[in-house]
Amino acid sequence: MACDASQLAPLLGNATDAADYICNQFVDAGHAIDNTYLLFSAYLVFAMQLGFAMLCAGSVRAKNTMNIMLTNVLDAAAGGIFYYLFGFAFAFGTPSNGFIGKHFFGLKEVPQAGFDYSYFLFQWAFAIAASGITSGSIAERTQFTSYLMYSSFLTGFVYPVLSHWYWSGDGWASAGRNLGESLLFKSGVIDFAGSGVVHMVGGIAGFWGAFIEGPRIGRFDHEGRTVVLRGHSASLVVLGSFLLWFGWFGFNPGSFITIFKSYGPSGGINGQWSAVGRTAVTTTLAGCAAALTTLFGKRLQTGHWNVVDVCNGLLGGFAAITSGCAVVDPWAAIVCGFVSAWVLIGLNTLAAKLKYDDPLEAAQLHAGCGAWGILFTALFAKEKYVNEAYAGRPGRPYGLFMGGGGRLLGAHIIAILVNVGWVSCTMGPLFFILHKLGLLRISREDELKGMDLTRHGGFAYVYHDEDPGHHQLASFQLRSAAARVDHSTSPQAADPNDA
Amino acid sequence: MACDASQLAPLLGNATDAADYICNQFVDAGHAIDNTYLLFSAYLVFAMQLGFAMLCAGSVRAKNTMNIMLTNVLDAAAGGIFYYLFGFAFAFGTPSNGFIGKHFFGLKEVPQAGFDYSYFLFQWAFAIAASGITSGSIAERTQFTSYLMYSSFLTGFVYPVLSHWYWSGDGWASAGRNLGESLLFKSGVIDFAGSGVVHMVGGIAGFWGAFIEGPRIGRFDHEGRTVVLRGHSASLVVLGSFLLWFGWFGFNPGSFITIFKSYGPSGGINGQWSAVGRTAVTTTLAGCAAALTTLFGKRLQTGHWNVVDVCNGLLGGFAAITSGCAVVDPWAAIVCGFVSAWVLIGLNTLAAKLKYDDPLEAAQLHAGCGAWGILFTALFAKEKYVNEAYAGRPGRPYGLFMGGGGRLLGAHIIAILVNVGWVSCTMGPLFFILHKLGLLRISREDELKGMDLTRHGGFAYVYHDEDPGHHQLASFQLRSAAARVDHSTSPQAADPNDA
Amino acid sequence: MACDASQLAPLLGNATDAADYICNQFVDAGHAIDNTYLLFSAYLVFAMQLGFAMLCAGSVRAKNTMNIMLTNVLDAAAGGIFYYLFGFAFAFGTPSNGFIGKHFFGLKEVPQAGFDYSYFLFQWAFAIAASGITSGSIAERTQFTSYLMYSSFLTGFVYPVLSHWYWSGDGWASAGRNLGESLLFKSGVIDFAGSGVVHMVGGIAGFWGAFIEGPRIGRFDHEGRTVVLRGHSASLVVLGSFLLWFGWFGFNPGSFITIFKSYGPSGGINGQWSAVGRTAVTTTLAGCAAALTTLFGKRLQTGHWNVVDVCNGLLGGFAAITSGCAVVDPWAAIVCGFVSAWVLIGLNTLAAKLKYDDPLEAAQLHAGCGAWGILFTALFAKEKYVNEAYAGRPGRPYGLFMGGGGRLLGAHIIAILVNVGWVSCTMGPLFFILHKLGLLRISREDELKGMDLTRHGGFAYVYHDEDPGHHQLASFQLRSAAARVDHSTSPQAADPNDA
Repeated sequence: MACDASQLAPLLGNATDAADYICNQFVDAGHAIDNTYLLFSAYLVFAMQLGFAMLCAGSVRAKNTMNIMLTNVLDAAAGGIFYYLFGFAFAFGTPSNGFIGKHFFGLKEVPQAGFDYSYFLFQWAFAIAASGITSGSIAERTQFTSYLMYSSFLTGFVYPVLSHWYWSGDGWASAGRNLGESLLFKSGVIDFAGSGVVHMVGGIAGFWGAFIEGPRIGRFDHEGRTVVLRGHSASLVVLGSFLLWFGWFGFNPGSFITIFKSYGPSGGINGQWSAVGRTAVTTTLAGCAAALTTLFGKRLQTGHWNVVDVCNGLLGGFAAITSGCAVVDPWAAIVCGFVSAWVLIGLNTLAAKLKYDDPLEAAQLHAGCGAWGILFTALFAKEKYVNEAYAGRPGRPYGLFMGGGGRLLGAHIIAILVNVGWVSCTMGPLFFILHKLGLLRISREDELKGMDLTRHGGFAYVYHDEDPGHHQLASFQLRSAAARVDHSTSPQAADPNDA
Repeated sequence: MACDASQLAPLLGNATDAADYICNQFVDAGHAIDNTYLLFSAYLVFAMQLGFAMLCAGSVRAKNTMNIMLTNVLDAAAGGIFYYLFGFAFAFGTPSNGFIGKHFFGLKEVPQAGFDYSYFLFQWAFAIAASGITSGSIAERTQFTSYLMYSSFLTGFVYPVLSHWYWSGDGWASAGRNLGESLLFKSGVIDFAGSGVVHMVGGIAGFWGAFIEGPRIGRFDHEGRTVVLRGHSASLVVLGSFLLWFGWFGFNPGSFITIFKSYGPSGGINGQWSAVGRTAVTTTLAGCAAALTTLFGKRLQTGHWNVVDVCNGLLGGFAAITSGCAVVDPWAAIVCGFVSAWVLIGLNTLAAKLKYDDPLEAAQLHAGCGAWGILFTALFAKEKYVNEAYAGRPGRPYGLFMGGGGRLLGAHIIAILVNVGWVSCTMGPLFFILHKLGLLRISREDELKGMDLTRHGGFAYVYHDEDPGHHQLASFQLRSAAARVDHSTSPQAADPNDA
Repeated sequence: MACDASQLAPLLGNATDAADYICNQFVDAGHAIDNTYLLFSAYLVFAMQLGFAMLCAGSVRAKNTMNIMLTNVLDAAAGGIFYYLFGFAFAFGTPSNGFIGKHFFGLKEVPQAGFDYSYFLFQWAFAIAASGITSGSIAERTQFTSYLMYSSFLTGFVYPVLSHWYWSGDGWASAGRNLGESLLFKSGVIDFAGSGVVHMVGGIAGFWGAFIEGPRIGRFDHEGRTVVLRGHSASLVVLGSFLLWFGWFGFNPGSFITIFKSYGPSGGINGQWSAVGRTAVTTTLAGCAAALTTLFGKRLQTGHWNVVDVCNGLLGGFAAITSGCAVVDPWAAIVCGFVSAWVLIGLNTLAAKLKYDDPLEAAQLHAGCGAWGILFTALFAKEKYVNEAYAGRPGRPYGLFMGGGGRLLGAHIIAILVNVGWVSCTMGPLFFILHKLGLLRISREDELKGMDLTRHGGFAYVYHDEDPGHHQLASFQLRSAAARVDHSTSPQAADPNDA
């Protein structure tokens, strides 16, 4: 719909060069606008990595804080190098086959039309998110060398290949497949911003890791009852959750990649700019509905109003709406969030029953709510929005409940099965081999002392004195003082609080 | 001033279609640019909610951290649902009367010209700010169910109606009232980004809540002297304040809503893009001046250099400049910030005298400095800027000190009185009824123990051990160890961890 | 390359007015796009100040947290006023001589072509960064009044003058010097976003301060061995580092100032939008490479995987790439980061040998890696990118290793020497005089107790009780309890701090 010199020229009395001149200016303006929009969206998505780091840190015990934050920093850093060298090529290196890309290694042949640096940056910020999810599931008990291996494999291969299938124009399951090629179920999979591509991948990988290495020491007592191993800082959890919300405004609305595009004749109010805004709104409303549902749901279940639970519910709502955010109405997003809260509550209950221990509820949240989101899209995607976001294929199916038939649902069920299968067949064996080689889980001693002291250079916090390790000292003194007290009599000690 | 086909066509030799074609492209470009600008501004305003959460958390005692952060998350979440269902409709649902809007419920009829999704998102991010201010005033002693009630009422009704008056084109006090209708004092109220609409509303509501429920236990000693109940983390206070500063770049400059608009003939440097930048500068300078003034003012008053005080001074400067940010010169913004610092210092001194306890100084800061900001605008608004930001009404009044006469001041005094009146008449009775029903204030026991332990699932922090509640345990051990000293020999001390 | 009416008019059959009309619309669009891009970049750069605050806070001991955060807030606040009054004028007040600017005091004559408010805001956000670096070097032992003096002098004079030399079109060393004037070595200095202008300035100033006042008490033991004085919160360090990364996306890519500019004929994909994206990518890759190199390098050196070290390595990579980010290929950025990690490790080893104490490694990181970055640019700058980013001077030199000859290297060696000389000759004497007057270093007592308690209104944290100062109390109790135990039997308890 952009400026078309072949349309403009006759209107100018066949002044072809003038039409070219004018339209080329619009092309430039479009590049400037779209790149501004995409780059700042990428920056927001990157901020999610900070959000993850804070959420993870706050959700683990203080003694493992240095460890988990290091994995978050490295997800971004190692992810940057790997995604530059080959991840981006596997995912988007076109022309290619439906399974894996084969150009753009080391950003060769970039920039070209449709593949500028901003696009690489945006996709890199997505790639590093998946690995962050996984490290949440296996937190507090996984060897660092093992982390280096699985996260490289996940960010460098498993994720890029899967994202190729859905998001590259060459991918076999893509809803925006290059014109002329047939779509899966004449539809393709509408996983707009990655409930499946990002969240399920990270969550399923995390599930296998956590399942294979088993629960943390003390997570279930002798009678098998769940013991809450509280994270060490709710403030960091809330900080992280809000930052993730903030970053999701890049993740979902940013996934349109461009914003300067009218829908229908130019000069009207209907265009991608409006769809981008609507996507920000659906994202917000799904999260809000999920947070509120969790507030009351958990209150019924536990008897208190817990902000950490509400934050997890919120994030579950976001993970769910990520697939359909661009193609559903705001009211439907509320339905999405409402259901996702119950999905998360249900899966958490199930996990406790099965003695599955996931310190961040990451598998339940990202894989569970992510899978729900893919189903939700197949039910509620609206015809108009689908045809605007995935243009050029008249007659394509849309949501079952919106009158669009069952083909999209068929494609989406395939997608869920394929996601589970692909990640299970790649990450499952990897974790199993690491486990068998004794590389996966840390020693009992390390786990009790915490990895920060044993592997990462020390405890994350020193609040009470300038001496490193003082607080361990203080705690030790406390015990020995109390022990020694037994033998003494000192009456001055009667009221130590009257200072 | 945008591309006008009726002007372009004759220049092209009456090639009407060509002119339409070209101008429509500019319309599209404008939509893309303006929505990018507005959406990213909205994201920044949203980040203020995170800033509030961290500021509030750091300003209360550790034992109430979970409680206050939950209110901040819920302000955003419940606010999202309510504002979608009816808040936005009450505020902007046009055409309507001067008192309340009546369209756009559930975003029906959106998008339309001037009311796209991005505009809703931006306004939602404003709406949730007011409620966050209030929860600061009544922190550490308010029942959670009471919070649910007043915040719903504030975000869903009190705030939207008042914002309608000033910001909707239909509002009776709007400075940008639909052309043809007469303005209040032939001027209307210039509350550009909401010193009154947001800050006074939140602050006055907070005042009534805090006034009705009275000070926290221990806030004033037996002789009536003020006892400082220090917030538990200055780092969170600074984090929150900086995030609020960051977000204010969306709040104030973003309130232009559009940026692609020239002032005067097109092709020059004078346009809304420049006014947006100037607004960012005035905002910054007001905050800077207020922070520096507070630094030295408080040093004189207390004898030390206190970063928490400086942060509050900074925020007071921002709250004050929010009204006039778009229509004053940078030097005037410095005056604004300088005075606002003394307003805050004065009101804090007064509050201590009156035994009014506001844990975040929220009423003093947001209502006090906000009211000063409205007066300031009436004194320093510059003719040129007023006519650019509120175009189409030649001869409208501007700042008294700038030679613009007293009509703007008259309108602004009315605005202050109306704000105080409206919020007092709605929120005052609500808090009073909650109080009388025993729903407002928590029990003495809850207040002493802290709400986190009694209502919100536990203490926010566990630094010292993996055992939940360990530090309470430690503190208990300290006391009991000392106590046991008296009697010596107590064998239970053998196992200090069995509490 | 923007819309040019003199080119368009003949294409339209000499419809001059039509060409003007159309091109003026593009001028407006350009203003809107470029200001949106620049303002949001400025906001990101501002977010770095928050990053600095958190990084600094986390890197010092808890007892000095209030002090260091106050300096970070004041860098921004005092910087705002000073930069408005004269800093911006010294730096960019054109027309002027090569040494110092002389217009734009108090933003007079702003806006004008090329100097809009957004540009001021962007440059202000840069100016305050330098001072933040310095406060890191001299943390935990510097008098607050001394801080007020040196930071004013640095932000208000030393930095603006130096930035004039390199970044003003009038500056003697500028690579974009006003056309017609000869360039230094026919090249000028390519310090695109300020490895030298910002990072070396802050780092060298910090070096002199830290060198003159000497190491913190306890930093080196009686045998001269280094004692690690751990920062009090690794979470704040990681938070700050990620925020700095986030903000660097404004710092480096934002330094193009505009984004709507094609390179070569309009209508193609090659333009400043692409260079901006590439700059974001080179920035990212340099940081990633440096972080990974540091991870393994430090692991070899210390035996553990330390996230705080990795964060410092990351920031060193950013400081290094900041000079050449716009003119090198992504692969070269990886080289840049790799080397910068070793520069930092080497300088830290040297600092320990020389008993130089810099709590944030700020001099090593910002001055050391910054200097490496300037050399790197002279070696790896690519011809095409140099001519695009610094257009209009055909035949200008570029990187030595890229076949561009040694003139750029010559200019850059001059730049390093000049930076060291200018900052040493201004800040060195200032610190020395303050030292001689007894104004620089705090008393031994203040240093042992911490400045927060003695000067800044109290300890930053109160985790354990509602009583202010409780934890000091607890610690006191612990000691007195242990001391009292002495009268009973256990002599080892005499010195509970000797562990």
